[in-house]
Amino acid sequence: MTIHDFPKGPYPTRVRIALAEKNLQSRARFVMVDLYKGEHKKPEFIATKNYSGTLPVLELADGTCIAECTAITEYLDNLDGQPALTGRTALEKGLIHMMSKRAELELLDAISVYFHHGTPGLGPQVELYQNPEWGCRQRDKALRGMHYFDAVLKNQPYVAGKAFSMADITVIGGLVFAAIVDLPVPEECGALLAWYERVRQRPSVKDQPAFLDLAAG
Amino acid sequence: MTIHDFPKGPYPTRVRIALAEKNLQSRARFVMVDLYKGEHKKPEFIATKNYSGTLPVLELADGTCIAECTAITEYLDNLDGQPALTGRTALEKGLIHMMSKRAELELLDAISVYFHHGTPGLGPQVELYQNPEWGCRQRDKALRGMHYFDAVLKNQPYVAGKAFSMADITVIGGLVFAAIVDLPVPEECGALLAWYERVRQRPSVKDQPAFLDLAAG
Repeated sequence: MTIHDFPKGPYPTRVRIALAEKNLQSRARFVMVDLYKGEHKKPEFIATKNYSGTLPVLELADGTCIAECTAITEYLDNLDGQPALTGRTALEKGLIHMMSKRAELELLDAISVYFHHGTPGLGPQVELYQNPEWGCRQRDKALRGMHYFDAVLKNQPYVAGKAFSMADITVIGGLVFAAIVDLPVPEECGALLAWYERVRQRPSVKDQPAFLDLAAG
Repeated sequence: MTIHDFPKGPYPTRVRIALAEKNLQSRARFVMVDLYKGEHKKPEFIATKNYSGTLPVLELADGTCIAECTAITEYLDNLDGQPALTGRTALEKGLIHMMSKRAELELLDAISVYFHHGTPGLGPQVELYQNPEWGCRQRDKALRGMHYFDAVLKNQPYVAGKAFSMADITVIGGLVFAAIVDLPVPEECGALLAWYERVRQRPSVKDQPAFLDLAAG
């Protein structure tokens, strides 16, 4: 399978972690799509890979494309019939999907909107329309989201309960993006910071390109 | 189980259809949350039911709350170990989640933002901040989304392929909301209109409160 990828991107990092958790990296071929050149917004990419013009996209050998991190994670996690990231029981599936979606709404996607609308984003050639007021409100929402996830992690070891799951990966994506836009986790969010320190030690997480600069810096 | 509900709401309608598809209506107790009174934004609702302040929310007997339609649908669909709406194989799961998310991004959620920001929405007591420019751009995005789903449905009978799924339910939610904001499906979207006519005949869909006025009108 082929992953249309931007190695340090917060969303592509989610799929890279899922691949590593499932030990599927060796089966994936990565193709770079340069976000800063707007390659993901080109008509051909939109027509043949992903109508929404976002990364990552997983392309199967027969040309079938699966976009959206949650969908790609569902695919990868169920390939072996032993889901480990998306839940085994109905209740686990419900809670993991809820918390992962909440991590998008209240953290990762909010920071993405801030990046594209409240900062120069990918630059004037790509950001053809910006709504800075909306962007800055989303930044504030993401800061509140950090406090929310801190409160969650005061009561349980992982975002959706007792086990590492897709929901943790989504929050990791959020904090990867937070570093890019210079929106640090507030010091008082001790549980969120301790959780982040802990999940970043996972083999699936620590060697991701998104963390390379930070490790070197 | 209890569903915190607003019977004609586009998002609650998604869960009502999923319940009916799974023949679980008799196990659900519905509790009305009045959106026009902002009951979903009250601190107690946010603290105890859903941090994101949206409907619907499924509450289990032990008080566990599952918010977000996709998460609730995953829960309901897997209760009997025979998923019919969210896919059986890895590929089905991937495609259904992709198309359902795309139906949110490009249609349902876009119309929701238009409603809350580009129209009076739930009224001045509830809509404490509006960004009309953003709202109107989302309306235009939703119109493009209708053309996208029309193209999809020219080539396959249902939104995610050969079978009715969660992705169809999400598009139904989008068209329920489109009717509320008076954003009709363009006449040239013949495949989308024919699909809508067809899925509205389903027993799980046709008697939903969202369609009652239309049937009477």
